[in-house]
Amino acid sequence: MSAASWSYPTDRVTLREVGLRDGLQLVKRVPSTAGKIDWLQREYAAGVRCFEVGSFLPASRMPQFADVRLIIEEVSKLEGARSSALTLNERGIDDALTTQVDEIVCVVSATEEHSQANMRRSRQAAVDLVGLAVEKAAASDHRPLVNAGIAMAFGCSIAGDVDQGEVLRLAEDCLKAGADIVGVADTVGFAGPRQVLDLCNGMAALCGDRPFIVHLHDTRGLGLSNASAALDAGCRVLDASLGGLGGCPFAPGATGNIVFEDLVFLCETKGFATGIDIPALVGIRDILERELPDEELYGALARSGPPPNVNWAA
Amino acid sequence: MSAASWSYPTDRVTLREVGLRDGLQLVKRVPSTAGKIDWLQREYAAGVRCFEVGSFLPASRMPQFADVRLIIEEVSKLEGARSSALTLNERGIDDALTTQVDEIVCVVSATEEHSQANMRRSRQAAVDLVGLAVEKAAASDHRPLVNAGIAMAFGCSIAGDVDQGEVLRLAEDCLKAGADIVGVADTVGFAGPRQVLDLCNGMAALCGDRPFIVHLHDTRGLGLSNASAALDAGCRVLDASLGGLGGCPFAPGATGNIVFEDLVFLCETKGFATGIDIPALVGIRDILERELPDEELYGALARSGPPPNVNWAA
Repeated sequence: MSAASWSYPTDRVTLREVGLRDGLQLVKRVPSTAGKIDWLQREYAAGVRCFEVGSFLPASRMPQFADVRLIIEEVSKLEGARSSALTLNERGIDDALTTQVDEIVCVVSATEEHSQANMRRSRQAAVDLVGLAVEKAAASDHRPLVNAGIAMAFGCSIAGDVDQGEVLRLAEDCLKAGADIVGVADTVGFAGPRQVLDLCNGMAALCGDRPFIVHLHDTRGLGLSNASAALDAGCRVLDASLGGLGGCPFAPGATGNIVFEDLVFLCETKGFATGIDIPALVGIRDILERELPDEELYGALARSGPPPNVNWAA
Repeated sequence: MSAASWSYPTDRVTLREVGLRDGLQLVKRVPSTAGKIDWLQREYAAGVRCFEVGSFLPASRMPQFADVRLIIEEVSKLEGARSSALTLNERGIDDALTTQVDEIVCVVSATEEHSQANMRRSRQAAVDLVGLAVEKAAASDHRPLVNAGIAMAFGCSIAGDVDQGEVLRLAEDCLKAGADIVGVADTVGFAGPRQVLDLCNGMAALCGDRPFIVHLHDTRGLGLSNASAALDAGCRVLDASLGGLGGCPFAPGATGNIVFEDLVFLCETKGFATGIDIPALVGIRDILERELPDEELYGALARSGPPPNVNWAA
């Protein structure tokens, strides 16, 4: 069994809370460290175990992640919880490896155009960085997983259509470079469920008994439909953020990541037991409302409550 | 080929705009007749052809439908457009048959509890009313279709779980009573996509080459995921309302019908050409904002716009 299969067992669904990273990417105000800790501790109590908690970048560029080391330390105190963080260059990898982070996340763009415009490097250079992260992680004391995420995998804000064969080749390159787990991201919310089903079928064939991650945004309203399609195709690891926190840099005013609590509900209706307490999760939104009063929150269950009297597990 | 197959061809998707009926069920203010006509004319121009436009009830009970006859007349002036309206008792059927309405809709509750509480009749009496509507429609001059919708088909606000076999038996009873088309409604938004796929597979087997309708609410955020599952199971007729207008009487503050414009987008991403112009549709929301300023509107495309540069038909 691979290291990733141990962290992300393929016989059940794992939901990764990325609100503390992706959800904070565009915030107008920086939440307090205490607020972040409250958020992750209460989500942990509600049953969440995987937290993407920030990015290793200079605090001058991303002040919302200045406390990433502290948050990683807090996650490490919670039995069975796992932290991940973005590392976008060698310096970030080195910095991450000085912490107890359980997983470092490298990003490879699906298109050369986006890779050059966003990261000022070629896709091959990004794959090489995955290889470097693998080497450095293997040489580290606590050997975190290396997660390689393919951004813009379902459509690119610059190049438009994305060839799914190219996405699969990049995912394969990342696996060959030693990544423990690969993911595909609908970074700008262009995907539809047929496309997600097709690409995830390809990912399932590529990854075999290794898990893979699908990261979706609800920019155009199809986020949960896409998550449902991903589950149908055998994906067992999905990203989401509480209250759908986070926007889209390419669609001002648009919604962000898929809504964590609604995703839990989707999984439960499909017969996947998540171990996550939905009403408790909904209750945690008050932290976001307090800490990030300028950000809009989304989600249907927070408005309606879960259905009464209905036994979804049946 | 059945009469219903002529109105709802099974080789493509038909989307029914139910905002003028279901969307107005709970409104705090009654929109003007001119506003309703503007709404349907502009949706027609955007490519929509099926409009559910009201309910035949005393105007004292439902003032929002007092102009139902006028609206039916307006639809009849639009080449290829079709109107439908609810008839909840014999008086309603008789009244509807004095108009040019193209389809009369009878409702049968999936559970005896809801049937008694909501309609003060048994489910059998509701099926009998379908038979009466069929007889009367056949004896009328313009012979509208008779549509029988099973309410609470995916879960009941009173009884909780709903036996899917019973829903299929009721649908079969309606067909035996002569209904041209049957539908299943997630009246209170309890459904998940697995359940929708299962029931729609049963409906497809029951209906054979006849079309069937799925009516979904987005109360708990799974509306479009459920629509995607219905399409996967072969459903080719779906209800929705512009801007998701309409709420849920059993979940105050919750969202209403699935959002028409987002549903069009879902269909297009799945390869179903709808002939509907999404940006034009989004533009029509301004009528709702003007006519119904107290009602909340929903929908992702209205916030984000459709994805640029991506060829979804490919």
